[in-house]
Amino acid sequence: MSVQKPSIPQGTRDFGPAVVARRNYIFGIIRRVFEKFGYAPLETPTLENLSVLTGKYGEEGDQLLFKVLNSGNFLKKQKGDVIKEEVTPDDLLAGPKKVLPKIAEKGLRYDLTVPFARYVVMNRGTLTFPFKRYQIQPVWRADRPQRGRYREFYQCDADVVGTDSLLCEAEIVLMMSEVLNALGLTEHTIKINHRRVLGAIYQALGGEGTETDLFTAIDKLDKIGRDGVEKELAGRGFSEEATVRLFDLLGVEGSFEEKLERLLAGFVTAGVDADNATADGYKGLQDLKRVLDYLRDFGFDKFENLDFDVTLARGLSYYTGCIFEIKINNVNMSSVSGGGRYDNLTGAFGLPGVSGVGFSFGVDRLYDCLEELNLFPPNAATTTRCLVANFDEEGERTMLSVLRQLRETGISSELYPETGKLGRQFKYADAKGIPFVLLQGSEERAVGQFKLKTMSTGHEQTLTLAEVLAELTK
Amino acid sequence: MSVQKPSIPQGTRDFGPAVVARRNYIFGIIRRVFEKFGYAPLETPTLENLSVLTGKYGEEGDQLLFKVLNSGNFLKKQKGDVIKEEVTPDDLLAGPKKVLPKIAEKGLRYDLTVPFARYVVMNRGTLTFPFKRYQIQPVWRADRPQRGRYREFYQCDADVVGTDSLLCEAEIVLMMSEVLNALGLTEHTIKINHRRVLGAIYQALGGEGTETDLFTAIDKLDKIGRDGVEKELAGRGFSEEATVRLFDLLGVEGSFEEKLERLLAGFVTAGVDADNATADGYKGLQDLKRVLDYLRDFGFDKFENLDFDVTLARGLSYYTGCIFEIKINNVNMSSVSGGGRYDNLTGAFGLPGVSGVGFSFGVDRLYDCLEELNLFPPNAATTTRCLVANFDEEGERTMLSVLRQLRETGISSELYPETGKLGRQFKYADAKGIPFVLLQGSEERAVGQFKLKTMSTGHEQTLTLAEVLAELTK
Repeated sequence: MSVQKPSIPQGTRDFGPAVVARRNYIFGIIRRVFEKFGYAPLETPTLENLSVLTGKYGEEGDQLLFKVLNSGNFLKKQKGDVIKEEVTPDDLLAGPKKVLPKIAEKGLRYDLTVPFARYVVMNRGTLTFPFKRYQIQPVWRADRPQRGRYREFYQCDADVVGTDSLLCEAEIVLMMSEVLNALGLTEHTIKINHRRVLGAIYQALGGEGTETDLFTAIDKLDKIGRDGVEKELAGRGFSEEATVRLFDLLGVEGSFEEKLERLLAGFVTAGVDADNATADGYKGLQDLKRVLDYLRDFGFDKFENLDFDVTLARGLSYYTGCIFEIKINNVNMSSVSGGGRYDNLTGAFGLPGVSGVGFSFGVDRLYDCLEELNLFPPNAATTTRCLVANFDEEGERTMLSVLRQLRETGISSELYPETGKLGRQFKYADAKGIPFVLLQGSEERAVGQFKLKTMSTGHEQTLTLAEVLAELTK
Repeated sequence: MSVQKPSIPQGTRDFGPAVVARRNYIFGIIRRVFEKFGYAPLETPTLENLSVLTGKYGEEGDQLLFKVLNSGNFLKKQKGDVIKEEVTPDDLLAGPKKVLPKIAEKGLRYDLTVPFARYVVMNRGTLTFPFKRYQIQPVWRADRPQRGRYREFYQCDADVVGTDSLLCEAEIVLMMSEVLNALGLTEHTIKINHRRVLGAIYQALGGEGTETDLFTAIDKLDKIGRDGVEKELAGRGFSEEATVRLFDLLGVEGSFEEKLERLLAGFVTAGVDADNATADGYKGLQDLKRVLDYLRDFGFDKFENLDFDVTLARGLSYYTGCIFEIKINNVNMSSVSGGGRYDNLTGAFGLPGVSGVGFSFGVDRLYDCLEELNLFPPNAATTTRCLVANFDEEGERTMLSVLRQLRETGISSELYPETGKLGRQFKYADAKGIPFVLLQGSEERAVGQFKLKTMSTGHEQTLTLAEVLAELTK
């Protein structure tokens, strides 16, 4: 083996002990909340067949899929002596699109939603609906890496399929709220809107331009402001009159209920067709009202964090009902979570008409928020609670039995594996963030006592073993 | 999108809620023990550079690596208009070995040891040694799938590097023992041996044949018996005399200490050279004695499960000191765990002379053992504790506030999202393994009480909400 300077691929990361512990703190809170709400864990394979993944994320998504080379001789598929398929010089000339299907059949999971849909369809016969699952796993995208964007990152999804009950939407708001408050991210806004409300707004403009152009422009309001959106819409064939009407509707103010009423009035004024099933804003407003009522009945008491945001559009085209997004108000960052209802997620796999609703937390963004706001609990990064110092061979033998008693009491602890060099042992405790060091020099040994040093303060106490155990389990 | 019948790749698995919960039960116990012993979590990326992976697992291992296609146009590397490298028709003729380096630079993690070594070398400047890490992550191997062998499976590794203290070996025995007993796998044997003892045995035979041939033959003793091993050794140039001496040494019996003494005597009789550094059986025996003493001092009380097994060889050639393996005695399965000391794991990455010792649990095999012996706790597969039945719209509103109080008490619970059809709601609870269903019909509602049904027995109690909360937190 030749010596080489090792490296990791662009856009990937090693997570050292302190970071893993902090990430697990976040995962733990999310998992607890999901489970408290009756969501059960699902895990799907990292490798999916490309036939499952391709075509589900748009053309750009297909480009960003990581593809895995077939194993063995990937250039040639043989059955006995007969070559079933092989890469030819003509294929090379035709380019990667021609070569790819011959050399790669598998890819890496790109999100958790498509594998979930695949799982539901494959197990439709044995699953009990409504099926509530959560899934916390990494996904891979061959995106250009940049600050805060990685090629391998975790998603935390919760979805329920097989019911169109709006109770699920209300519970999503509750779960979002509970996770954020448990993490200490109290300064947040849970934005909610409805695709049908957006559809009605489009209708109210009088059928100019396209829905997609309208939603794309609205989505940019935060970034480019009203002037920017007006300019963009003008360029896309929307009249000035329509744009004025748009901002009247987007500008409705007041409480959640007041906004609902004022929008309803706006739709009536604009003559939105109540019978148009695909853009039925009335149904959207009713749904939102129902979600609000459920939250009241539940006893939700954080309405100041909930915002009916008419400008929330979200990109993904498969949403058909309520849509959600979370913004942390005191951190400069785009959303840390989003989701919505979809009516035909499993359709591509041959199971149409399964309604579902779900959402996802981005753990990297939550991590950055907690770090910026200094919200990680001080002990989130520690695993070992007590380092037992190792003076000499004689002491080592005593301290081994002490170590056993510490661990039997449930205290994570370790004996420094080499004797002597106390300074190095303290340095080790320090570097590892171990809060306590337990020592027994010959003096203490003579009287059956121990010194317990608190690393943060330097404070030393002389204690019996029983007292040490009591102190460390405080 | 065309409709397709979805599938998952050969050798991969979906883990549904019940299986994830049971796997998490195993992971949880392993993680707790690792942390209690001061091992800190590390996570490395799924994608590693092929330059890191290739050549580390032998030629067969290189074949079994999953390789990931470069993104973009994988047939051509361009800088502006200049083609830096491209796959040519000549490459196709030369075959996959010639094409591979041009189209794939990354692969999937094949084990947790090489990424760990890479991490240690890349972070040598900031890590504090001894560095104790555990790592629980999936690995991928393009092996032919068969019963019990998957292409994607988890490993649970704990290693400490940067110390040659035999305390670490003793603690590995303690961790193995604690994990197995916590899982209820009390009928186990922790086998321990030492590569130098094996080396001395080879020396004792008089230098015939090769070490590798000898160890390979010994490794098969379980399967092919003494006769088989004798035949194999005869075919590899070992004399009858040597083989007799071998079985005298392998056949030493008695307690751990007695075996140590008798082997020592055997080596002396055979004239093993005490100064031969590479095959120094004396040092091996001393090491084992030391490990035994550490275990005694610690207060280890499961010596009946520890076996100094002179026939334990283990395949991996990088082991240099103690080696370990665990066998579950009452299940017909090869080892569920193995490990050992290595002296030069990081050498391939330019950091020689770092001694370490580690071991790994195979979670799939542990799972199969627990299942076969019916050792999973009955509640390991459940997440939701109580289903709140949903009678009608009026009841739904009351039950929402009940739901909140259940959850505030820490009880995982869910309201069935649709009203009516009580039979379907019970079926849902049953299928999901939810142990309790809470109901409030109009009768109970009138007097502010509830019915709590225990699904396993069908028993129903009429209770106040306070009593329900008390019952469910029992």
